Amino acid sequence: MGNSTRDIDALIELMAKLPGLGPRSARRAVLHLIRKRALLLTPLADMMQQVAATARECARCGNVGTEDLCDICNSEKRATGELCVVEDVADLWAMERSGVFKGRYHVLGGTLSALDSIGPEELRIPRLVTRVETEEITEVILAVGATIDGQTTAHYIADQLEGRVRLTSLAQGVPIGGELDYLDDGTITAALNARKDI
Amino acid sequence: MGNSTRDIDALIELMAKLPGLGPRSARRAVLHLIRKRALLLTPLADMMQQVAATARECARCGNVGTEDLCDICNSEKRATGELCVVEDVADLWAMERSGVFKGRYHVLGGTLSALDSIGPEELRIPRLVTRVETEEITEVILAVGATIDGQTTAHYIADQLEGRVRLTSLAQGVPIGGELDYLDDGTITAALNARKDI
Repeated sequence: MGNSTRDIDALIELMAKLPGLGPRSARRAVLHLIRKRALLLTPLADMMQQVAATARECARCGNVGTEDLCDICNSEKRATGELCVVEDVADLWAMERSGVFKGRYHVLGGTLSALDSIGPEELRIPRLVTRVETEEITEVILAVGATIDGQTTAHYIADQLEGRVRLTSLAQGVPIGGELDYLDDGTITAALNARKDI
Repeated sequence: MGNSTRDIDALIELMAKLPGLGPRSARRAVLHLIRKRALLLTPLADMMQQVAATARECARCGNVGTEDLCDICNSEKRATGELCVVEDVADLWAMERSGVFKGRYHVLGGTLSALDSIGPEELRIPRLVTRVETEEITEVILAVGATIDGQTTAHYIADQLEGRVRLTSLAQGVPIGGELDYLDDGTITAALNARKDI
């Protein structure tokens, strides 16, 4: 297309860099945005500018927020003894949606990975050790993924913190509403080994 | 989440309104944007503002652009006798990517639909008739979808323009690279009926 549409083309190219959007869906999204200029395009542009100006990492736990400390670290309603260790902010949000955890978080920013040469220093593991030493933490819940890298990370953290604090991990088993037929063997094995009396 | 993250929540809500993104992928996209603030979030916000300020509908054909007439209508290189009628701008872009059509377009803005009470006046059909009457059009190619609504629209337009201009439609058949096994019966029937000598 010609010169005067180069802004639209540039917008499509930028949109296509979002996770979950390819070139085709980026084009659809941009056409939708142009059609809904007042209702969607302008508010979205404004809000992006706002977030670009204010979003920052919590200096303590690594969550995203708009101040030095995130809402959760700042809240007086959260229990201070329990620390839930998650891989990234999306996991923290998932935990928060369940609404069941009343303590605070520590966001690692990924998992240990020899392949991608991500060591403890690349993650927030040293900062986690410092937090356990300096804050009055009684329990660290390792809510990392049940993947190889996730479990390697959990073991490494457990080694670092052993004897200093109570260490727990999330239970493994059948998801609520899950059908056995659709579960992998590992999950069924874990659920059977951790079976409970009724 | 608390108060200071309400901008981030608002951004997620707006992103979730884009076609192809749900709440979950909107959250992922926003986290990605915050991580890539300088590289993606700020440029995207700027480009959205730019497009919101300049994008407009071509006064002649309904394509999007940044001036009164779109690049294609403005171009002196395009043949003026052939008019390709498409349902929407995404279809026009698809035709342009193929690079094979050298004429100009007319974007209907949808299809006739009794169910959604979209009549000829809601589309750019009267404007198409005017164009055929006033511009020196020799052929109108009806490149609308092979859906019921698309074909109804094509028939309606053909009725309006009959006798005034040569009317054609895109050939139907097996897509290039398409395997017969994956094709629907209708396409196979159409391809067989339109079979050619080798």
